[in-house]
Amino acid sequence: MNQQSDLILRQIPAQAAALGPALTALRRELHRRPELGWMEFRSSVRIAKALEKMGCDEVLVGDAVCDRDSRLGVPPQAELEAHYRSVEAEGLDPALLARMRGGMTGVIGILRCGPGPVIALRFDIDALPVTEAEDPDHRPAALGFRSELPGVSHACGHDGHTAIGLGTAKLLCGLREQLHGTVKFIFQPAEEGVRGAGAIVAKGHLDDVELLLGAHLGGEPDARGDTIGVGPNRTLATSKLDVLFHGKAAHAGLVPDAGNNAMLSAATAILNLHAIPRFGAAPTRVNVGRVTAGAGRNVICDRALLELEVRGLTTEANDYMTAYAKRIAEAAAQMHGCSCEIALRGEAAGDCNDPALCRTVLTVCRDRLGLAVAELPDEPKGYISEDYSLLAARVRSHGGQSCYFKNLTACAAPIHDPRFDFPERALVTGVTAFAGLAASQMG
Amino acid sequence: MNQQSDLILRQIPAQAAALGPALTALRRELHRRPELGWMEFRSSVRIAKALEKMGCDEVLVGDAVCDRDSRLGVPPQAELEAHYRSVEAEGLDPALLARMRGGMTGVIGILRCGPGPVIALRFDIDALPVTEAEDPDHRPAALGFRSELPGVSHACGHDGHTAIGLGTAKLLCGLREQLHGTVKFIFQPAEEGVRGAGAIVAKGHLDDVELLLGAHLGGEPDARGDTIGVGPNRTLATSKLDVLFHGKAAHAGLVPDAGNNAMLSAATAILNLHAIPRFGAAPTRVNVGRVTAGAGRNVICDRALLELEVRGLTTEANDYMTAYAKRIAEAAAQMHGCSCEIALRGEAAGDCNDPALCRTVLTVCRDRLGLAVAELPDEPKGYISEDYSLLAARVRSHGGQSCYFKNLTACAAPIHDPRFDFPERALVTGVTAFAGLAASQMG
Amino acid sequence: MNQQSDLILRQIPAQAAALGPALTALRRELHRRPELGWMEFRSSVRIAKALEKMGCDEVLVGDAVCDRDSRLGVPPQAELEAHYRSVEAEGLDPALLARMRGGMTGVIGILRCGPGPVIALRFDIDALPVTEAEDPDHRPAALGFRSELPGVSHACGHDGHTAIGLGTAKLLCGLREQLHGTVKFIFQPAEEGVRGAGAIVAKGHLDDVELLLGAHLGGEPDARGDTIGVGPNRTLATSKLDVLFHGKAAHAGLVPDAGNNAMLSAATAILNLHAIPRFGAAPTRVNVGRVTAGAGRNVICDRALLELEVRGLTTEANDYMTAYAKRIAEAAAQMHGCSCEIALRGEAAGDCNDPALCRTVLTVCRDRLGLAVAELPDEPKGYISEDYSLLAARVRSHGGQSCYFKNLTACAAPIHDPRFDFPERALVTGVTAFAGLAASQMG
Amino acid sequence: MNQQSDLILRQIPAQAAALGPALTALRRELHRRPELGWMEFRSSVRIAKALEKMGCDEVLVGDAVCDRDSRLGVPPQAELEAHYRSVEAEGLDPALLARMRGGMTGVIGILRCGPGPVIALRFDIDALPVTEAEDPDHRPAALGFRSELPGVSHACGHDGHTAIGLGTAKLLCGLREQLHGTVKFIFQPAEEGVRGAGAIVAKGHLDDVELLLGAHLGGEPDARGDTIGVGPNRTLATSKLDVLFHGKAAHAGLVPDAGNNAMLSAATAILNLHAIPRFGAAPTRVNVGRVTAGAGRNVICDRALLELEVRGLTTEANDYMTAYAKRIAEAAAQMHGCSCEIALRGEAAGDCNDPALCRTVLTVCRDRLGLAVAELPDEPKGYISEDYSLLAARVRSHGGQSCYFKNLTACAAPIHDPRFDFPERALVTGVTAFAGLAASQMG
Repeated sequence: MNQQSDLILRQIPAQAAALGPALTALRRELHRRPELGWMEFRSSVRIAKALEKMGCDEVLVGDAVCDRDSRLGVPPQAELEAHYRSVEAEGLDPALLARMRGGMTGVIGILRCGPGPVIALRFDIDALPVTEAEDPDHRPAALGFRSELPGVSHACGHDGHTAIGLGTAKLLCGLREQLHGTVKFIFQPAEEGVRGAGAIVAKGHLDDVELLLGAHLGGEPDARGDTIGVGPNRTLATSKLDVLFHGKAAHAGLVPDAGNNAMLSAATAILNLHAIPRFGAAPTRVNVGRVTAGAGRNVICDRALLELEVRGLTTEANDYMTAYAKRIAEAAAQMHGCSCEIALRGEAAGDCNDPALCRTVLTVCRDRLGLAVAELPDEPKGYISEDYSLLAARVRSHGGQSCYFKNLTACAAPIHDPRFDFPERALVTGVTAFAGLAASQMG
Repeated sequence: MNQQSDLILRQIPAQAAALGPALTALRRELHRRPELGWMEFRSSVRIAKALEKMGCDEVLVGDAVCDRDSRLGVPPQAELEAHYRSVEAEGLDPALLARMRGGMTGVIGILRCGPGPVIALRFDIDALPVTEAEDPDHRPAALGFRSELPGVSHACGHDGHTAIGLGTAKLLCGLREQLHGTVKFIFQPAEEGVRGAGAIVAKGHLDDVELLLGAHLGGEPDARGDTIGVGPNRTLATSKLDVLFHGKAAHAGLVPDAGNNAMLSAATAILNLHAIPRFGAAPTRVNVGRVTAGAGRNVICDRALLELEVRGLTTEANDYMTAYAKRIAEAAAQMHGCSCEIALRGEAAGDCNDPALCRTVLTVCRDRLGLAVAELPDEPKGYISEDYSLLAARVRSHGGQSCYFKNLTACAAPIHDPRFDFPERALVTGVTAFAGLAASQMG
Repeated sequence: MNQQSDLILRQIPAQAAALGPALTALRRELHRRPELGWMEFRSSVRIAKALEKMGCDEVLVGDAVCDRDSRLGVPPQAELEAHYRSVEAEGLDPALLARMRGGMTGVIGILRCGPGPVIALRFDIDALPVTEAEDPDHRPAALGFRSELPGVSHACGHDGHTAIGLGTAKLLCGLREQLHGTVKFIFQPAEEGVRGAGAIVAKGHLDDVELLLGAHLGGEPDARGDTIGVGPNRTLATSKLDVLFHGKAAHAGLVPDAGNNAMLSAATAILNLHAIPRFGAAPTRVNVGRVTAGAGRNVICDRALLELEVRGLTTEANDYMTAYAKRIAEAAAQMHGCSCEIALRGEAAGDCNDPALCRTVLTVCRDRLGLAVAELPDEPKGYISEDYSLLAARVRSHGGQSCYFKNLTACAAPIHDPRFDFPERALVTGVTAFAGLAASQMG
Repeated sequence: MNQQSDLILRQIPAQAAALGPALTALRRELHRRPELGWMEFRSSVRIAKALEKMGCDEVLVGDAVCDRDSRLGVPPQAELEAHYRSVEAEGLDPALLARMRGGMTGVIGILRCGPGPVIALRFDIDALPVTEAEDPDHRPAALGFRSELPGVSHACGHDGHTAIGLGTAKLLCGLREQLHGTVKFIFQPAEEGVRGAGAIVAKGHLDDVELLLGAHLGGEPDARGDTIGVGPNRTLATSKLDVLFHGKAAHAGLVPDAGNNAMLSAATAILNLHAIPRFGAAPTRVNVGRVTAGAGRNVICDRALLELEVRGLTTEANDYMTAYAKRIAEAAAQMHGCSCEIALRGEAAGDCNDPALCRTVLTVCRDRLGLAVAELPDEPKGYISEDYSLLAARVRSHGGQSCYFKNLTACAAPIHDPRFDFPERALVTGVTAFAGLAASQMG
């Protein structure tokens, strides 16, 4: 690290702080109008316009971002269109919007600063199917930026992630003359349900990336100040599967033998899925969370839909669970003369952090950016799934490094809670960290 | 059987034939405006008005017909009210209608002709949740009396049963001076799903009945003429049960052990219900026809609803199945720390025909009413369930006799088929049989 | 029926009665030394010697009786050999005995009396794995002919059947000059478990048979006298299956995922077998009666053996159950990465009586042989399985007729009960019926 | 640590080495005559005699060692007696032996050296139901000390543990004048199946212990020299359960409904046991390893025995599994009208090492005893269960410390393998470590 890099880094905290009011305004604007995965039309137009304005060398949208056929868990066409039309009616740039039609959301901005490392920063942009709290001591309600859409809200902080992403891009664009290398600002759709990352990977955007960074807002209500938390941050690899059994209806009183009983296939699959033998080398999970089956009490069931997920602390453990689950579904179908369709609805990999890069993140944040930092322990109780892991897996597959850290602040409630909220000063912390970490590698 | 009785019977075929055009018109009116079980508001008003007009000594409606708390499978209040209001808007007798509010449908007309036997004739009046065929070669469509209500139709011929009942009442009221005894014309609601008969039994209407008759329209498309079919007509006793498992939700990735998994209770119950050991002395049936369970893929399922039925060729066999099914549901709940609620949604008994009365029906129809008759074999493939059996069980419990026969004619399709229809001359056959049989016992 | 036939029949009751003491002695000899299925070495030598002595034209033993590969449920070689050697040591005809080695038991005697019908009479000869009662009020114990072999006894009366068969053969051989046609005396091994009949059918012995008769001893303790019972005598078609799951062992604590869990295959199969949807047109049965699985508590189970049976009142119903059971076994294996072997261990067909022949049996026994007869009702509670049905199915497949009747007398207990016994006068009744019925067709 | 202690420790390696030939001889003697859990009659006499001879202050045997009713998984009385009599016939001290009759094996020697810490050293003494390899390149076979008992062998190294225990006792007895405090030499029976430790705890022997040490022989075949391995050595808490379902037999063809089907209870329990939802905070295991059920193919199963185990990386996780398993068993019984008996057959706790004591063990072994040491990582793949953990749990419950370490050497095969063997120089290492560690605390 040379003196120039040091010089650059010194400017960053102040520049980030100067962006504070704009970041807050942006976050609240996004918060008021949340959009579910693959339907982030308004958000994507907003992001693309901003990236263009701040001078990114390339701004990718539509088919240039996600591989169309690799998208998982895309909502039904009717839902996509209904939201698309309501956004279209708002008068946004029609050509830009049209490229996103049918669920081709997400934006990637690219800043090219000559020879040097290729760095990717990932920000997820979608909202959750959670109705936001409306009581007056919920700050967004009190301050008037509560979600305007019933049943949908940014209860996972992706509004903040988006704002941090745009702030980081703005700051780094401003420093472009002093930087060496390339930065990709990846605004990923459909993280909830781990549905979006795979389609970005499939498009090849990570193939040349040497360093990947991502972060999540979070923290206990009684946190004193803001802290960058770094640790193993181990995540659970997961596969989200839909299993649809097709049987044959028959009158259950007259000719039960004339049917093919999809209900028996379903029940057999449910029990056996939960009974998949534990994996020796790493913890696993399995859950059949929803089932809808059958047409009438006195009719042999001809259709049963299981919505399930498996997980594993390692990708290997999850692969074991996924393969076993598919085998169970197929055998359960066959057992009762039914057929089955298995569809992948979401997916994430396991472990995504490189200890070496984690140490760098810790050092740079603490020593050069003046941020408070915390070394986080490995915490089994906190294992979640994140499709950032798929981006990381691709980067690491060719020797690159990844670090997913936590942007810890005093949150009002756990993520996914209707009362989730965070103090907006954390946006400045986020921009400082992302911009500073990128710049530290590009000096 | 004396001469007078013989005299009366001789008049009946011609009197029934004379009612033909009116019966056809009435049946088509009912066919156009079918009503589902416990919602037969319009039909019940229509029936009550007609019975009053023809001079029945008593016409019971509302709480006088069904025991309110013994009604099974009553639709949700909102559905009842929506249909009630639409019927109310048609301007029917408001006082009469008001007595039926909340699903208190069905009508009983009583004709008292002095000392003599107490006879009950049962006619079911509700429609089915089946969308009627609309192609031009479906006669009701061609002739303009197809159901006007999407998703509901008289695909089981109860429109015909109702017309036959009113025709029979009219004819017997006309003969009242020549008759001895009492006739109850029972217009039963909610036969589909075997939900209504028990509530009429609970009200005590069968307690003094010595002879009970019922019939169903049916027959192959190539039937030459109309025939009264008499035989064992064995029916399957049945219980329709809803089992609702209550568990506890939890995050399936973080703390699967913190939930109570109602999905596992449901799957265990489904398999074990179908695995109830066969009953040695009579065939049985079991079917879990519908299941809806769970809230989300990554949430431990906290609620699962099973809609099921058991059956047995004898009431004893069905009782075995019912008791076993309940034990399975309770144990499956307990196994996973869940609770369960079991609700009876419908019910019928087994065997309902007395051979002696069957022989009488055959003889009277053939020899004294000049109707074609057929002796029907015991046919396992044709076993269905009918809640007429509950009325019969009560009558037989105190020494009375019952006969449920078939009014066979050239039907366009099997019952419950969207194309079901029958030639209306069968209405005359039905009136001849019911009126003649009643009169033969009251001479 | 001509006068000569009548003459012959008149002699039969007295001739049978004359055989009484010899039949009793023979039955007691057999009773003392019972032999299980496919191990009837001593009994078969005894029967063959007797048939030769009385002048049968052919006496078939060994490979001439059963098709070797069609035998079902043959005991392990070691068991066969152990018993074979103990019998060999008794000094029986070594050449004859040698032909039965390895479980080739059973004998067929053929009496040829020139042109005329081909009649087969079937007698089953094996014992049961039941320890006979030893209390002094058990007649065989009191009179000293209780089974000498612990764990094995003639609790199903096949000792009586064998004695009746030899008595019938002796009587008909004595009348050969007056008879026309052919009689096959089939002494069938391994009826228990319905294992033997198929191998006799496979050898072609029934291909030319026009009339087949069989009977079973039985009756309530309070029966007054002996009676020939004739009726539908419907039997349950059945398949006895062994399902052996092969998995892979692994340490259940360290690497449960390294195994293939045959225990899960077994449990899934058991539940689903019992849950095979009921057959509409006829009652069915299924039972997994025995399971042995696994090697140690902490080892993933690598081997599970299920011993099961399915049944149906018709062969069609049983075929449905059998095919479904096999599909379940295969899918349950596949579900957990196991393989499975399915072996047929026994088999019987459904219905085996021709009403026309039943009427003949009733008439001949009552009117020409002077026996008491009873017309038996169709009795669901008494449905059992009998592999006589396989012989009958073959005879009827080419237009022949079959009647399986009951030789009812005052039995001490139900069949298969350790206290089963019958009065030996029933042996005379049996010989009278079989010999008389055969002679009535050969006059 | 004072100079005197240092002086003592310096002598230990040489004194242990001097015991080498005797340890080897002893180990081979034990190896030739292995005894299964609760049947270590000969071994216990041998140990007790040796401890007395070397001057222990107390030598406890019989009821003084284990609480009789707290012993788990005691073999059937007949097995105990058969082995007891064969040992009795060898002419061992009859009075001593008699105190062990009925499975009261195990020995505790106590050495009292005045005021000072109470230390317990644990050595397990039982063998495994494994047939030892007999090929000539298996060293015990080549050198003539292979197990003389077919089906039983010291494939888990407890012969070595016993020798080390006696060597350690001898060495410390010799140093008694220089030591301060108390040492308990616990020779535990029935470690295999984790059956013995609980009964020693129940007797109160650990109630005053401040330091507990235990060790296991092991290591890869290519290990260069001997090493003391110290690390978290996390073990799986476990419960070994037998579940016996009692149902009611019935003829599966005639009256399947008359039985109570224990087979269905068993199958339901097996599937649901394996489907117990994963525990969030720690990995778990479950295995139904053996099942024997039913009496005959055509009989409703009236008895089913499941041999199962659950495990958890923490005692809390195992408690969750155990409670859930019991609930499943009871509900599965109830579901089919059966009853069930649940018996605990073995048990171990989770985590048993204190980091502080581990560091001490490492330091003393390396710096003061001159042994090679290795710091072992936490290795999920190596998690096993050990009932040493129950001793540790009691010691730690009142503030004491525990360390279970590994005595690593070049073993011929993994433990429990028929070819397991170890170089006897490891006995010297073991004695050095145990005696040195104890002395280091008693200086």
